[in-house]
Amino acid sequence: MTTPSSTTPSAPVVADVPATLDPSVPVVGPRGDAPQQPSGMPVHRYRPFHEQIAVDLPDRTWPTRRITRAPRWCAVDLRDGNQALIDPMNAQRKLRMFELLVQMGYKEIEVGFPSASQTDFDFVRTLIEEDRIPEDVSIQVLTQSREHLIERTYQALAGARRAVVHLYNSTSIVQRDVVFRADEDGILDIAVQGALLCKKYEETIPDTEITYEYSPESYTGTELEYAVRVCNAVIEIVKPTPEDKMIINLPATVEMATPNVYADSIEWMHRHLDRRDSIVLSLHPHNDRGTGVAAAELGYLAGADRIEGCLFGNGERTGNVDLVTLGLNLFSQGIDPQIDFSDLDEVRRTVEHCNQMPVPERSPYGGDLVFTAFSGSHQDAIKKGLDRMEADAAAAGRTLEESEWRVPYLPVDPKDLGRSYEAVIRVNSQSGKGGMAYLLRTEHGLDLPRRLQIEFSGIVQQRTDSEGGEVSSEALWDAFTDEYLPATDPGRRWGRFGFRGVQQESTGDGEDRLTVTLLVDGEEHEITGIGNGPLDAFTKALAERHIPVRILDYAEHALTEGDDSLAASYIECEIGDRIFWGVGIDGSITRASLEAIVSALNREHRARV
Amino acid sequence: MTTPSSTTPSAPVVADVPATLDPSVPVVGPRGDAPQQPSGMPVHRYRPFHEQIAVDLPDRTWPTRRITRAPRWCAVDLRDGNQALIDPMNAQRKLRMFELLVQMGYKEIEVGFPSASQTDFDFVRTLIEEDRIPEDVSIQVLTQSREHLIERTYQALAGARRAVVHLYNSTSIVQRDVVFRADEDGILDIAVQGALLCKKYEETIPDTEITYEYSPESYTGTELEYAVRVCNAVIEIVKPTPEDKMIINLPATVEMATPNVYADSIEWMHRHLDRRDSIVLSLHPHNDRGTGVAAAELGYLAGADRIEGCLFGNGERTGNVDLVTLGLNLFSQGIDPQIDFSDLDEVRRTVEHCNQMPVPERSPYGGDLVFTAFSGSHQDAIKKGLDRMEADAAAAGRTLEESEWRVPYLPVDPKDLGRSYEAVIRVNSQSGKGGMAYLLRTEHGLDLPRRLQIEFSGIVQQRTDSEGGEVSSEALWDAFTDEYLPATDPGRRWGRFGFRGVQQESTGDGEDRLTVTLLVDGEEHEITGIGNGPLDAFTKALAERHIPVRILDYAEHALTEGDDSLAASYIECEIGDRIFWGVGIDGSITRASLEAIVSALNREHRARV
Repeated sequence: MTTPSSTTPSAPVVADVPATLDPSVPVVGPRGDAPQQPSGMPVHRYRPFHEQIAVDLPDRTWPTRRITRAPRWCAVDLRDGNQALIDPMNAQRKLRMFELLVQMGYKEIEVGFPSASQTDFDFVRTLIEEDRIPEDVSIQVLTQSREHLIERTYQALAGARRAVVHLYNSTSIVQRDVVFRADEDGILDIAVQGALLCKKYEETIPDTEITYEYSPESYTGTELEYAVRVCNAVIEIVKPTPEDKMIINLPATVEMATPNVYADSIEWMHRHLDRRDSIVLSLHPHNDRGTGVAAAELGYLAGADRIEGCLFGNGERTGNVDLVTLGLNLFSQGIDPQIDFSDLDEVRRTVEHCNQMPVPERSPYGGDLVFTAFSGSHQDAIKKGLDRMEADAAAAGRTLEESEWRVPYLPVDPKDLGRSYEAVIRVNSQSGKGGMAYLLRTEHGLDLPRRLQIEFSGIVQQRTDSEGGEVSSEALWDAFTDEYLPATDPGRRWGRFGFRGVQQESTGDGEDRLTVTLLVDGEEHEITGIGNGPLDAFTKALAERHIPVRILDYAEHALTEGDDSLAASYIECEIGDRIFWGVGIDGSITRASLEAIVSALNREHRARV
Repeated sequence: MTTPSSTTPSAPVVADVPATLDPSVPVVGPRGDAPQQPSGMPVHRYRPFHEQIAVDLPDRTWPTRRITRAPRWCAVDLRDGNQALIDPMNAQRKLRMFELLVQMGYKEIEVGFPSASQTDFDFVRTLIEEDRIPEDVSIQVLTQSREHLIERTYQALAGARRAVVHLYNSTSIVQRDVVFRADEDGILDIAVQGALLCKKYEETIPDTEITYEYSPESYTGTELEYAVRVCNAVIEIVKPTPEDKMIINLPATVEMATPNVYADSIEWMHRHLDRRDSIVLSLHPHNDRGTGVAAAELGYLAGADRIEGCLFGNGERTGNVDLVTLGLNLFSQGIDPQIDFSDLDEVRRTVEHCNQMPVPERSPYGGDLVFTAFSGSHQDAIKKGLDRMEADAAAAGRTLEESEWRVPYLPVDPKDLGRSYEAVIRVNSQSGKGGMAYLLRTEHGLDLPRRLQIEFSGIVQQRTDSEGGEVSSEALWDAFTDEYLPATDPGRRWGRFGFRGVQQESTGDGEDRLTVTLLVDGEEHEITGIGNGPLDAFTKALAERHIPVRILDYAEHALTEGDDSLAASYIECEIGDRIFWGVGIDGSITRASLEAIVSALNREHRARV
């Protein structure tokens, strides 16, 4: 390749420059003569970022640099993430999230704002008193810069081996003006007094090793010169050394400009912070402009050392930066994220359970649809890529798992994340009525969960491949009932298990005792289990009979069309090391869900034949 | 501010350089001594992007430039978006999407791949034959570079005033090697032959004004020198002029590197394309690394003129770049997107209807939670910002709508998008059991849709403010039943409407005739309507009585706890110009949903008192 710089760059395209803009800066506008019209929206109410904050770094170096190692990660799911949930986590969910983060390999975990919330205080005490924090993990707690809150923060930490105390105050122009009604010196003094109070109360817990983190909150709305002045004043009090560093965290509390501007500002701060060799420079992007991941990556190139974020991008408004995407973006470049994403579905299920919010279908790496190919040409290219990899591996005497991943349209091997690739065919029904899920919903009142839709489409595809041609609406229903529902016609396959009936009683300890009558290979058996609800009791009863079933996901609804006294239940089961959905339809929700488990058991059994 | 360049940049941080990396390039690594450990994931299977494709542009100019005008937009929802749906759009949904895009102001709309799909062919014919394409709108159709497909493409376009013919073939290293098994010249020839065939078949429809678009598909996996060679060969055949331009589209078919690398590659192409003044340089980012929006914005800075994407980022795998985020990012900087987003909820509802997929809660600008503040300190700052804006506006004799938007934590005024800001309080129940939605679900079996949760939390907040203190589980249920469900206690408020019964019969034309007995101010009335299902029939019956109700959203489920023979229905209604949710609980789904509408009617009536 010739060196591009040997050619003359064309002159910058200078569009009509609106009166508000500095004409000395090259600007970008469209070419061509598109007839787009003014929208009539009130754009006059908004000032461009560069008129609010000057970020000027013509000798920036970050665009030439490359990422080669993972940053230091800090997971803030239990604080910034939790604060943004309609249903904040209870103690049990918090603990589950903490354990997930530890298990994945996060070593710094912000666990709460103990001085502002009794729930958070109690959770920190539980972690410490029950000795749940591994040796090499630091918990981090947030505090505002006020004496009674700082005092309470150190009370929460008593007995911890080590902790990060994260002090913040808001520094932006608009917050100084509107919220605090204080000038630059006044706001700087809040930070300095907070740092002094931290040092004072640190003496109350001498056995805890404290690291400090300071955030000029709303950093993106703060003039850089003022931001560095405040940070340097705090650094002067904390007096970090290369052996005992402190963290300076620069949050995009609100994302306000394109991510290259954030990166410029980070490189500027990187150059201007005092005692840089004693500072861990940290980023905390939010996603208001949909560019949180980019801001983190470019800011990391610009000199940062550490990134704070949440799994799957939970957090206030549009969310914190997504730690899953950041980590797996590294992985896809051959860089170890130092975090274990090898069972991403399990990570996702736990996060969905703790946050009580779904991970979107198109969320990078973890969404339901991201390893699904719908287009025939994509499917063909993927198949050819996989075939070639296999042939090359065989020729070289390697396994596929040892081979370089090189498949069109799939940036990583889904198997490396414990996931799988799905090629989904279109079901072209009559009258242009759309696809499979649509037909099942409108004609049979069944609203299949997304992953079950994908599983079933694979089954339809197998039938189409073997029987050829388009799939009619009747053939589709036939395929569905044959696969998931009990055979009514004795000539049809179903499986060795049948559901006959159930008796349920309360044990008095808030648990259920369930007795299920099962038909097994034609004989009736009664099995009994006690659990936290009927599903739990049934899986326990099955486990005693050496049938291990783990419930991964669950959905149910009343039938919206047809007979509305019926309910449908869909259950995703892990049986052995494979995953099967089961479906049950019944007048009772409880029976429908037990039948769904039986459906999954039969499917697993058939798959082994 | 001092010029940062007057200070000496610190030396690049050079981390341990893995053997695979070029040591002459500065690299980034962490500082500090975080005890993160290797993950054990198979990173050896992945090669970094720069080892696959060289993008070298040390004299890049894009990081210094600023966006000042909207690009030329092209919406590909009906092609790339539709292709990635489990339930592809039927003809009715396609038309609705097309009309939405036209109404918002998009002037270039990719409507299908007519040579590959009969449904797409029929849709293009419908648009043309029913004269549904406005004068100033161009439809765009995709075709592969094969003669019978190109011939069929022109057949689809016959009779159109104008159209963009979008020719593509795959050019990446891996596709050449694995899928096409052809060398560089062979793949170039596919493009050239396609362009020649397009010119040939263009003569079959002389009355249609054709613009050409060429995409080297999988551009991000293509060597830049080869990509420009192929594009220039096609340009040489099409012979565009400044008056009759052609579009060169550079797709990030798979996003493969950080977005600054895509921008470098776009600036390189911008400098090297022949006849640059006759070319509309177009971007088509996907979101595999979660940085599609950033890639579009930085690529636009780097010299592009045009951006292709989908509303709310629908599209293959992780999606196409999100046109809503791109447009409103411009708006938030005082730049007219030339697209009307002033009723974003309506845009979203239409997109959800057409795509049959939800827009995620945290999707920028459009998600349910993005204008919601949960944290007390955020709520306080927002309130102070709004108060100050009002005071300043009053002092200056301006309205709030004329004033510059300047409120912490809210990058734009939700009212400018037809949305509203919600401050959500925490309901702190006993035993740390989490929030409001959790309590209603676990104690009463009700699973409220997200926006209803937000509406109800505002009602709880009003009660908390007036009655003070924490909200108990009982008080919460009391508030819910008092607000949404019929009064059982005659002393309680409910409203002027009561639901007494319903009779339903089929008209024989596939429609329902519904007769509802309503109690209105204590008197029974029978009202009758015919519609497409009971809800439609009921709203038509109400409309005849001058009660205008539009159904915006709808959810229902069987009660999961307690009495599972009951169903709950939640309906979001627009009544006049206000929006109210209604709730109905009944043994029949139909009755529950009619009761939900009555609930919304009573709430609207109470709100007017």
